Amino acid sequence: EVTLINVFEVPPGQRDAAIAAWEKARDFLQEQPGYLSTALHGSLDPQARFSLVNIARWESPAHFADAIAAMRAAGAFPPVDGVVPNAALYEVVRAE
Amino acid sequence: EVTLINVFEVPPGQRDAAIAAWEKARDFLQEQPGYLSTALHGSLDPQARFSLVNIARWESPAHFADAIAAMRAAGAFPPVDGVVPNAALYEVVRAE
Repeated sequence: EVTLINVFEVPPGQRDAAIAAWEKARDFLQEQPGYLSTALHGSLDPQARFSLVNIARWESPAHFADAIAAMRAAGAFPPVDGVVPNAALYEVVRAE
Repeated sequence: EVTLINVFEVPPGQRDAAIAAWEKARDFLQEQPGYLSTALHGSLDPQARFSLVNIARWESPAHFADAIAAMRAAGAFPPVDGVVPNAALYEVVRAE
């Protein structure tokens, strides 16, 4: 299992458009093999540098790579003006 | 309940020092009122822009603010050279 963390830089006024685009991508990705869960987090402070952060779980890096390739092939997910995603796969290295 | 997400920019060679500093802060913070859980995530790709991301849960923003104030007052948590934290409180705005 891996954790996908996508940290979004969202210009003022683009948060709703970014959430709507995220929902479209989520609807596609959650149907792909190896998808486990996702939750989009919004900052309490609208001035936060990263006002949206998606945290999702996938069975493996390969499952995630295949899902993203399928999404790109579908070609129906245009970027939102000014919104900069920073996505990477993670594993827990320390906990309690 | 709120989610604290701290996205760290870590220069090459400073990951172990950043993790050690994180462990010291965790040991202090997990004793503070309102602390629920924490997990430090490390990127699978060492070249990822944010190679460490901490995801913690706290009972409320006030509990978190008090814990950070106490940590600062204790004054025993120096920053690690070149490591840039980006901490903010979040709530889940969309899930499945």
